[in-house]
Amino acid sequence: MPTLLLENIAALVTVAAEPGTEARPRRSGAAMADVGVVHGADVAIDGERIAWIGETGTRRFDGAERMDCSGMTVLPGFVDSHTHVAFAGDRAREFAMRLRGATYQGIAAAGGGILSTMRAVRSGTIDQITQRARGLVRSAFRHGTTTIEAKSGYGLDTENELKLLEAIARLGDLEPADVVATFLGAHDFPPEHRDDHEPYIREIVERMIPAVAERNLARFCDVFSDTGYYTVEESERILAAAREHGMELKVHADELSSFGGAEMAARVGAVSADHLLMISDEGIEAMREAGVVATLLPGTAFYLRLPYAPARRMIQSGLTVALATDCNPGSNMCENMQMTLALACMGMRMTVEEAITAATLNGAAALGMSGEVGSIEPGKQADLVLYNLPDYPGIVYHYGVNQVAAVIKRGRVHSFRD
Amino acid sequence: MPTLLLENIAALVTVAAEPGTEARPRRSGAAMADVGVVHGADVAIDGERIAWIGETGTRRFDGAERMDCSGMTVLPGFVDSHTHVAFAGDRAREFAMRLRGATYQGIAAAGGGILSTMRAVRSGTIDQITQRARGLVRSAFRHGTTTIEAKSGYGLDTENELKLLEAIARLGDLEPADVVATFLGAHDFPPEHRDDHEPYIREIVERMIPAVAERNLARFCDVFSDTGYYTVEESERILAAAREHGMELKVHADELSSFGGAEMAARVGAVSADHLLMISDEGIEAMREAGVVATLLPGTAFYLRLPYAPARRMIQSGLTVALATDCNPGSNMCENMQMTLALACMGMRMTVEEAITAATLNGAAALGMSGEVGSIEPGKQADLVLYNLPDYPGIVYHYGVNQVAAVIKRGRVHSFRD
Repeated sequence: MPTLLLENIAALVTVAAEPGTEARPRRSGAAMADVGVVHGADVAIDGERIAWIGETGTRRFDGAERMDCSGMTVLPGFVDSHTHVAFAGDRAREFAMRLRGATYQGIAAAGGGILSTMRAVRSGTIDQITQRARGLVRSAFRHGTTTIEAKSGYGLDTENELKLLEAIARLGDLEPADVVATFLGAHDFPPEHRDDHEPYIREIVERMIPAVAERNLARFCDVFSDTGYYTVEESERILAAAREHGMELKVHADELSSFGGAEMAARVGAVSADHLLMISDEGIEAMREAGVVATLLPGTAFYLRLPYAPARRMIQSGLTVALATDCNPGSNMCENMQMTLALACMGMRMTVEEAITAATLNGAAALGMSGEVGSIEPGKQADLVLYNLPDYPGIVYHYGVNQVAAVIKRGRVHSFRD
Repeated sequence: MPTLLLENIAALVTVAAEPGTEARPRRSGAAMADVGVVHGADVAIDGERIAWIGETGTRRFDGAERMDCSGMTVLPGFVDSHTHVAFAGDRAREFAMRLRGATYQGIAAAGGGILSTMRAVRSGTIDQITQRARGLVRSAFRHGTTTIEAKSGYGLDTENELKLLEAIARLGDLEPADVVATFLGAHDFPPEHRDDHEPYIREIVERMIPAVAERNLARFCDVFSDTGYYTVEESERILAAAREHGMELKVHADELSSFGGAEMAARVGAVSADHLLMISDEGIEAMREAGVVATLLPGTAFYLRLPYAPARRMIQSGLTVALATDCNPGSNMCENMQMTLALACMGMRMTVEEAITAATLNGAAALGMSGEVGSIEPGKQADLVLYNLPDYPGIVYHYGVNQVAAVIKRGRVHSFRD
């Protein structure tokens, strides 16, 4: 028996082929373009689940709470499948230095860079890290993100990687958003192993992964596989150990160079490969054949003034393309998925429809959750976002301001309207 | 006797060479970089004016209301000197079509383009146009804009250009922001004069300009001078008529082609020339010598996926560079100046400091108001914005979300904190 009825929705974007059919991640431009819009819709919710979808006024659900959605657009909550929101410290000053022309070396000499975040994490408490991350998760939620992934990777030793994952575990209890944890001990090499990688890789494989698995602190294991970071061989070794311990796999691939990261992600059966600014045609083909989700992070290209990932080529090749923020203190300090959609359209020439599919259903696929979240269908989790817009293109058309009026997470309404 | 004391400001950005000296628009990179930061400051306000600035705790003002600004950054309110917020209709669908690859012709055939806005304005009432514009001015204010320019230009006949300017005149009474009106009858040619420009130009010169001046409806007159729009000769004729009727001058120049618009703006003594994506070296030199403010609109380049204006070259050449949103329904639907700063830094390689100067004091100069607003100095209008940030680089560093906690306009506090 439905408990909540959303009535008179001006534009309901289900991201399902037909309302009521099971959603699967979308692999082609045509499939990504079909976002399943119903103009004039009602949605019934029963507890934490979507119960029914139909045209406005076609069914009454006596006893259900009613919410008038006149003039509003409703989308599935965004699934932000790639973030680094758990950190400590502040790198705004370093960012301003970079814009004034400071080099990477100059910033490092002034105490900046990823190692400054590592030092702040190592000297911070779980509470401090949790509180900082909580603010970002809450802000992301107010901008429409109902499921968010968060990676470790700023501790770079066993104790501090576990500290970050424990902070991430607390976020899901404190905030309404679902938080999915990823272990990224192989984010960089810590300064104590800068010139001799083997001891740190052994620490990851022999200590960190078993400890993370034993405490059930991460669903995914990720590796930064690129020039100057983890080689393909090192990455495969770490990912193999993670798989043995029951984790699913992700890869930071081909961000800085065409490194074979995409091919490796296909070989190891990763759920997603992310960044992919420099992906090769072979990498695209390998990922397509293996069904690896291509997670694009246009905010990072924008922030670092790098060329964007070749989204059109990937979509035309039949890859499952997802969008995520990559929210992190060094290369993209932005937790707003609406902004990511604008950058995807204006920077990578994705259409509004493709961007919506990539940020919802395909984002869910990048977390292995497309059966649970990412579209509006009976039986799925009731994660819906209400926008102060008469139709969905406005989400990108009127960019740079928050259009969210309310977020419904697991059937519970969180209203932000003035 | 001060009526309000802002205490314990973590970072006060005065955009004055030294607190207490008179601000002038900044013409060089070095001058634009000097934003006059005081860490640990108090500001006293007397009625609508700034009365005193000093280090925290150095003076008591008994009887003044006190506002604790611990952990906050305070900047002058943004001066958005180029917008088209007064319009009617909705072009979100056309935007989505364009991303799907529709041509300009295809969009026009589907009823889109600037003429769709013109038709909506002609059939709309002053009240409808005012209400629509009011929402954007209010949203801009909540994002830190305390002074905003608004142009006519979607009526394209005498009756409807006056209707737009009357709507703009009402905005300043309804909203706390100061609204500055610009007459832009020469925004495009109306369909009834598409193939024979002379009658419309005569209507502008002989009917519109006298009527606008008589009713005192616009401080500025602007012309869209570019290939396919108004020639340099037509533009000069219109601007000369406006000057005779006491209006100051602005030019939409060199957006689509290197057209001599910048040189013309210098020749006629315009206060600003705007857009300038295709400006020539001669145009830069002419504007520099004549002291014309170069108003850059990076949002429009981003939105239309055009190359950005050569901001670094202009700054290095000693131009007074200002930033504005160009908020309008066709080529940049964004009223948030924080977003404009992010695009200026990431897209045009401006520094955070240059972007702040360009969006405040130099924006004021683009409206001939740098003696009144655009910096935080005793005697100036008390237009200040409080950000939930420990220091100013965060305004760009943490982009894509609204950082404003409160806006003080003419000494009155508007608080938006949760």
